[in-house]
This record gives sequence, C-alpha cells and structure tokens, in this order.
Amino acid sequence: MKFELLATDGAARAGRLTTAHGAVETPVFMPVGTRGAVKALGPDDLRAAGAQIVLANTYHLLLRPGHELIRELGGLHRFMGWDGPILTDSGGFQVWSLSKLRKISDAGVEFRSADDGSTHFLSPEIAVEVQQALGADIIHPLDECLAHPATREATERSLALTLRWAARSKVAHACGAAGRQALFGIVQGGTWEDLRRRAAGETVALGFDGYAIGGLAVGEPKETMYDLAELVAGLLPADQPRYLMGVGKPEDLVEAVARGVDMFDCVLPTRNARNGQCFTWDGPVTLKQARYARDAAPLDPACDCYACRGFSRAYLRHLFMSGELLAYRLLSLHNVHFFLRLMRDMRAAIGGGAFEPFKTRFFARYAVSSLDVSRDQLLPEV
Amino acid sequence: MKFELLATDGAARAGRLTTAHGAVETPVFMPVGTRGAVKALGPDDLRAAGAQIVLANTYHLLLRPGHELIRELGGLHRFMGWDGPILTDSGGFQVWSLSKLRKISDAGVEFRSADDGSTHFLSPEIAVEVQQALGADIIHPLDECLAHPATREATERSLALTLRWAARSKVAHACGAAGRQALFGIVQGGTWEDLRRRAAGETVALGFDGYAIGGLAVGEPKETMYDLAELVAGLLPADQPRYLMGVGKPEDLVEAVARGVDMFDCVLPTRNARNGQCFTWDGPVTLKQARYARDAAPLDPACDCYACRGFSRAYLRHLFMSGELLAYRLLSLHNVHFFLRLMRDMRAAIGGGAFEPFKTRFFARYAVSSLDVSRDQLLPEV
Repeated sequence: MKFELLATDGAARAGRLTTAHGAVETPVFMPVGTRGAVKALGPDDLRAAGAQIVLANTYHLLLRPGHELIRELGGLHRFMGWDGPILTDSGGFQVWSLSKLRKISDAGVEFRSADDGSTHFLSPEIAVEVQQALGADIIHPLDECLAHPATREATERSLALTLRWAARSKVAHACGAAGRQALFGIVQGGTWEDLRRRAAGETVALGFDGYAIGGLAVGEPKETMYDLAELVAGLLPADQPRYLMGVGKPEDLVEAVARGVDMFDCVLPTRNARNGQCFTWDGPVTLKQARYARDAAPLDPACDCYACRGFSRAYLRHLFMSGELLAYRLLSLHNVHFFLRLMRDMRAAIGGGAFEPFKTRFFARYAVSSLDVSRDQLLPEV
Repeated sequence: MKFELLATDGAARAGRLTTAHGAVETPVFMPVGTRGAVKALGPDDLRAAGAQIVLANTYHLLLRPGHELIRELGGLHRFMGWDGPILTDSGGFQVWSLSKLRKISDAGVEFRSADDGSTHFLSPEIAVEVQQALGADIIHPLDECLAHPATREATERSLALTLRWAARSKVAHACGAAGRQALFGIVQGGTWEDLRRRAAGETVALGFDGYAIGGLAVGEPKETMYDLAELVAGLLPADQPRYLMGVGKPEDLVEAVARGVDMFDCVLPTRNARNGQCFTWDGPVTLKQARYARDAAPLDPACDCYACRGFSRAYLRHLFMSGELLAYRLLSLHNVHFFLRLMRDMRAAIGGGAFEPFKTRFFARYAVSSLDVSRDQLLPEV
C-alpha cells in the first residue's frame, strides 16, 4: 500500500492511497458493509454514488457466514461483488458492543454471539488470520474498546493490553501475506490526553501502514472528540493515512478533516436512510413529516443522485410511509451519495487551498440537526 | 391504443400493443407495482430486467397516497418515475380480498380500509375517475369478484351486476379522456362454462379496447383455470388483446399463452423473491436450503441478470439468511428478469412457428414445484 500526500491546507490534507484493488482519494468516507453488503445497496449503487472503498465488519462475517467459507469462495471482494478496496476492522469494537458474556485475558477474548449463543474466541493472531481469509486491503489489530466513561485506571490497563496485542498482531501479520494487506495500528487511550499521547507514541513506534484513532464517538462530548482527534492526528506520521473510526455526521467529517484526519466510516447515512432521514446541504430532512406529502421537489435540488434525479419528496415519502423496500435503497443511495460528495468537495477545497472558506460556507448553510448523536446511533449496524 | 397481431402459432399469438407511453410486445408479463413501486425494484431495475409495462393497484393508491395527490403531482408515470406504459385494475378484486365490512348495492361498494379503518365508496364511475386521475394507459371497470367456490345463483347475480357496471364504466370512460386511456372489459362468470360464454358475449357486445379474464387463479383447480381461459380466449375478438388477471407461475404462463392469452400479471416473482424462492429454467430454487451455503454458482447459469452476473448462490443465500435488504432487490430482479425472459422466448417461438417444440422443451426441463399455488399466494401484494 502506498500513501501520497497531494496537498495540505492548514491541518487538512488531500492524498491518495493506492491498494491492491485500486486507488482511494483522501479524505475519504467509507460506507459500511457490515455483513458484506452496504445495507440496501448493491455494488452498482455504490459505484454510482462514487464509493471508492467500503468497510466490512470482521465480527459479523466471522459469525456468519464464516471467514473460511468466504476464503473458500475466493475472498470477500469476489463474495460481495466489489472489486474496489475493502477495509476490515478487527472485530474488537463489536465484541465489546454487541456480544454477551465476554471473558478477556491476555490471550484474547471469548464471547458469545448475540445471534445464536455460539461461543467464539478471538486473539490478536486469530483476528489477523480471519482478516487474511477475508482478504481485505486494509486490516486492523484486535484492540480493547472501553465503554465511555471509564476510569483512568481501567483505561491505562486497557491501553496496555491493546498495545501488547498490537505488537502480537504485527508479528502475525508479518508471518502472513503482509505484502498484499496493509495493517493499520489503532490508537486508544480514552479521554486522557497523556494516555492518548502514550498510545500514539507506542503504536507509531511499533510501525504500521496507517493509523486508526479508536475509542472516540462512543458517547463523549463533541468537543472532546474533536480535541482528541486533533491531538492524536498531530502525533501521527505526516506521510501515513489517519483514520477516525466510526465518525460521523457531516459536520464531524468537516471538523475532523480540518484537524488532519484522512479516513472515516459510519453507519449514519444508511441507518438514518432506513429511518427516513436524508442529508442535504441545508441539513437533514425528516421525510415522514407531513409537510413533504405533496412536495414535488427532489430531496436535494443540488444533488445528482438517482433518487434526486428521478423522484419527488412526495413519492419518496409515500414509499417510506408504505414500508416499500425501494425507499430504503433510494434514501440510502442518496445519503451515501451526499457523504461522498461532501468528501469530494473537501478534497477539491484542500487541493485549491480553500478549505477554510469551504468550511465557513458549509456551516453557514448546513443546519446542524438538533438531535444529538447518541451512542446507540453510532454503534455498528447489526 | 393500437393492437397488431404479428404472428399466430396454433392458438398462441404474438402481437404489439401501442400505448400513449410506448409499445408493448405480447405475450407480455406485467410486474406488479401495487403501491406505485414494484417491491424492492426501481425503474432502473425494471428497465434492466426488460419490463415493458407495469401494473399498479388502484385500490392501494386510492387509499395511500390518494389519487388526487398523484394527479396533482402529474400522474402516476411521473410520480413513480416510470415513463413506460402502466395498467391499473379497477380496485374491485382488492375490495373483495382485502377490505372489511363491504356493503354492496347497484350503486357501488362501500368498504373499510384494513389499514386505518377509513370508509370509502367505489362506483363504476368513481373507479374510472380515480384511474383517470392516476393516468394509466390501460384501465379497468369496477367488477365484483366472488370468492371460489360460489353457488351458481350467486355467480349469476354477480355477473349481472358486473355487466351493468361494465356498461356504466363505458359511459363514464367515454365522457372522460377516452382517447388517452384504453378501457378493457372484464369477463367474469365463475367456473360455469355457460356463464363464461354469456359474460364474454355481453362484454364484447359492449365493446372495449381489450378484454381481461377475471375471477380465475382464485383457488380453482389448475385444469379448470386452463380450460376456462381457453374457452374465454376463444370467444374474444382475435384483433384485440386478452389479459388473464393475476396469473401466474411460469408453467401457467406457458399453458395460457398456448391457449391464446396475451397479457399477464402476478405478484409471484417479487413475493417469492422475498421468501427466498428463485425461478430458474430447471425450476424454483429455495435459497435457504443448506445445500446452497457454499455454492459458488450463480442462481441460474443461463441468466444474464445483474444478480446472476455478479453474485454466487452462497452470497445471495448469506444476504437472505441475514435479512439484508439487498437480498430482496437482487432476488426480485432475478425473478422478474426470468419471467420477462420466458415471455421473450415465447414471443420468439411464436414468431418462428415453433411454440409447441418450445413448450415441450420448457416442460422437459422445468421441474414444476410441488408446492401448490394457494389462493393466498396469488392475492395482490399488500
């Protein structure tokens, strides 16, 4: 994997990540394909929306249909019909947020599937092996994700474990097909600045192909998230990609790009689509509101996605209110398209040395939803 | 509307129906867009599957979002983003199969929506007016649909009412925008041959743009359906299209085309897709069966739809078992594609004077499902 920094504008960066399955222009948003499919969207829709790379969840694919089956069928790219780059997380976050009866030790973590009660074990080595079976372009080491808030003591203990696991993951990765798959390190450390500094320093010292900032967007105040993302981004090597895991809302993407982050993923565009919430340059639109019942305008007149080119708000609302499956596809397509367009516009602004004016214009128009991002909203799709 | 008979082969016919929104090659299968959308499919998917015309249900659209709203927004074509021909039924069948507390008189029928309990009234005149508001290319007169089995007395009484309503519908249609919309007559008469003869004779005497055969596929034996379709088709004018309402399975389409039917609609391809049943030239495939879990082959190797070109049975099964929304789109797309391909092949066989050998080859290969078509399966999608 190669990363080139093409332009900087303040702390904001525009770059290009070249993987075994093609190039990715950064800053980039990765639609989330939890179970090997971005909910309600086909690879054709993703291409049409401008997706360059998708994320898949190791945890979900491990449980169903199983990584060995996917390996047998030629890997995740072929399995899901997506020939572009894929990033997988290690499953750590889901073990903590979705599983029952976790038993953690230095060796790894035993957990029960919430689906069928089956018992599984993940170690740093197994997490790498599973991701090698899936064959993603970018993989991650198993880490421990603490719930927020956590005590300093718990955070220190957890960080130490995550760092020991990171070192083991690196060894496991080096023994495998290291050439084809990039391994990112994950910087944890909770909400303590000094722990975040320690985490960044020790993770970078281990040496990874890129760095993820983990343990944010889990319920802490927005400002804390922005501050810590800025702090950690500043401690990471300038010539490697930086990925803020699980973020976020459009305003978060703009704020985090301004602080030097290159990569993002979030279930927000697809999950909110399924709840009838659509993103526009003027802020979110809640389609179930009666005022859209006779609205002949497209969701977002400035948008050139299939949903906006072909259909009125009134029709999309009718589909949504009727529970028509087509609603989920069209609204998901629009939301993903919006997120990817936002990233494209940011890349162009950075390339033109005009990121600050872009940011000012964006916030002048975009009406930030009064709905707070609850922790639940940001959990991965199940 | 113009209908040209292009070729005949035995009783089977190939023709071309020209509507205000384009031409339709017959025999044709019309995917069902109950609420103004074919379930899980967009107009782009329908075009890709080769759809020439879609059906929409007057009953459902009347209740939600309402025909006046659709008229206001430019009619059903614009509303649902489908610029090809549309056929609407009159709502009669749904009033009988879905509504509560029907009160019927010569004037019309009062019914309660099963959705929200609201009360509505349909007369022959109102049914025409609603369909004029929707703006479909082919519309139908309000008819009474009896449950099967019905007594001869009830069937005679019902047929007389349907015929009186047909005459009133014709007058209402003539007073409206008759030039733009074709009005089909509906031949009822239950399972009595002499009543079917009387129905056909009197309906044809009224004079319509085409003729629907109603009241079949409602639970009667297969052979009865085939026999009555053959009987009625033979009594209808050769130079006008014949439409067998609510039919059917692939084998039914072949049998009915062999008996001189030109048009069909059924929820089967989309509904069965949502239950994981896929149609192939070798018969239906039930995807949830464990034997497909590691099957790298496409659903149907002979199919060139997007689902078959891009994905394995193992992946489609995984999506279906996981409840992924993409499963519904891909399986619906495949099934609709299969039905439309079957019709295309029948048209070619008729054109080449080789319908009988086609039929023999079809049945030699197609393993008819042992599952009987229950009445419930053939009810419209709700």
